[in-house]
Amino acid sequence: MGEGTYKRMEGTLTGQSSDDSVRIVLLGSGNVATHLAKVLAPNIVQIWSRNPRHAETLAHDIGAEAVENINDITLEADLYLISVSDDAIIPLAMQLKGRKGIWAHTSGSIPATALDGVGDAHGVFYPLQTFSRDVDVDMAQVPVFIEASTPEAAGKLKKTAAIFTSHIYDADSDRRRRLHIAAVFACNFANYMWLKADTLLHDEGLDIRVFAPLIEATLTKAMTTGPRDGQTGPARRGDRSVIASHESMLQGDDREIYSLLSDSILKYFNK
Amino acid sequence: MGEGTYKRMEGTLTGQSSDDSVRIVLLGSGNVATHLAKVLAPNIVQIWSRNPRHAETLAHDIGAEAVENINDITLEADLYLISVSDDAIIPLAMQLKGRKGIWAHTSGSIPATALDGVGDAHGVFYPLQTFSRDVDVDMAQVPVFIEASTPEAAGKLKKTAAIFTSHIYDADSDRRRRLHIAAVFACNFANYMWLKADTLLHDEGLDIRVFAPLIEATLTKAMTTGPRDGQTGPARRGDRSVIASHESMLQGDDREIYSLLSDSILKYFNK
Repeated sequence: MGEGTYKRMEGTLTGQSSDDSVRIVLLGSGNVATHLAKVLAPNIVQIWSRNPRHAETLAHDIGAEAVENINDITLEADLYLISVSDDAIIPLAMQLKGRKGIWAHTSGSIPATALDGVGDAHGVFYPLQTFSRDVDVDMAQVPVFIEASTPEAAGKLKKTAAIFTSHIYDADSDRRRRLHIAAVFACNFANYMWLKADTLLHDEGLDIRVFAPLIEATLTKAMTTGPRDGQTGPARRGDRSVIASHESMLQGDDREIYSLLSDSILKYFNK
Repeated sequence: MGEGTYKRMEGTLTGQSSDDSVRIVLLGSGNVATHLAKVLAPNIVQIWSRNPRHAETLAHDIGAEAVENINDITLEADLYLISVSDDAIIPLAMQLKGRKGIWAHTSGSIPATALDGVGDAHGVFYPLQTFSRDVDVDMAQVPVFIEASTPEAAGKLKKTAAIFTSHIYDADSDRRRRLHIAAVFACNFANYMWLKADTLLHDEGLDIRVFAPLIEATLTKAMTTGPRDGQTGPARRGDRSVIASHESMLQGDDREIYSLLSDSILKYFNK
């Protein structure tokens, strides 16, 4: 899967393995923290959260210690994973100046330097996935993007990711930003196309679910032969009369989006 | 799943049931014809194709008779399903004037009237799915859209669809055109967003597969809680500084598409 993959030695696809050399303190109890806690359970020694009850519940679930006071966080851990909301990272970092160990946050959009001065080294441990508390995620398939201020910290973060996934990549802040743009196209904009379709279908007494098999087949094709080969439709075929007929039936944003994307596809495929 | 669903009496999710009262001649041997032949096998008495060898192979596979000469097609069938390419439907209809029985084609974009004068009644039997010869399709999940010139023909077409699916809807030519527009958004344009993401990822030594879990989670959410609730990203949050930073990193079509879709999402969610 491209360059930058960190090769793992053992298979841990079940997420049940651990690496005894990494003792982790988890800061946070939200969606990302909860999913990470489950796969990193054997390595997590303490959990702290702004909400002590959440920390207690999560710590109880995975057999770790809950910490209510931030000053009671152990100094003996190898890795401190900050998995709180983007807005809360910098205020939290302020409270943590001058600690020991490796400190990393799990955000895709905050620079690693937000944790400068907190520990001996700092970094980012960014699992690229959308997490909902009640939806199971196959963490073995989740890619993790790593950035660190020292090679030792990078190694520790990669070891930690390797506990649950083999899809591990290096990504500095600039690369994370470019990945984020690509993710906006792949997920936010693709979802918006489904929202547009859903709205059009509602006029017909239907909804997007009627397209589920079609979308799933399109996605499977995109993931196997690639989205270039998977591209179909009037613009891909260069069928300008169908495009014009569709445009005449659309209004406002729908029409503007239809025209811009059709033009772009026509150009892309030299039609 | 919306109005217009034709309620089935028995469960035939395996596609192994049949309806003794429908004897079908299949005209065509392409991707759609092949997938239909498999689920309608017990009901198919003859298969004709422009390519006699293809007709023979397919007929052999499902235990039907292959017909080489179009004049040898039986007059005794209830339903004649024309599953050839869009371009070939009208020329074929010319050769078939004055027959008996119900004649229907499987195209989403050709009007039912293309078969006017061919049989006693005519119609459309449109399975909404993208078919590849070698990719298995769960036909029980495929929606079929029906149009017919008589109520009896509509009934026969619905009975036929009910052999393999419970997702059966009425759709005249106008409705099929509107469904097609929605499908262009849901599939062609969504795939184009993946193509854009894939291109951006290639610059990073990655490809779209790194987003597979993220896209699948987004799709699952869109199909369960709906794509309105599933919408995330900078535009959904109204985060104009991230949008501006992304725009400054994009060029040409990518930038134009990013801006138009972000503006549209901002407007849609009153951000």
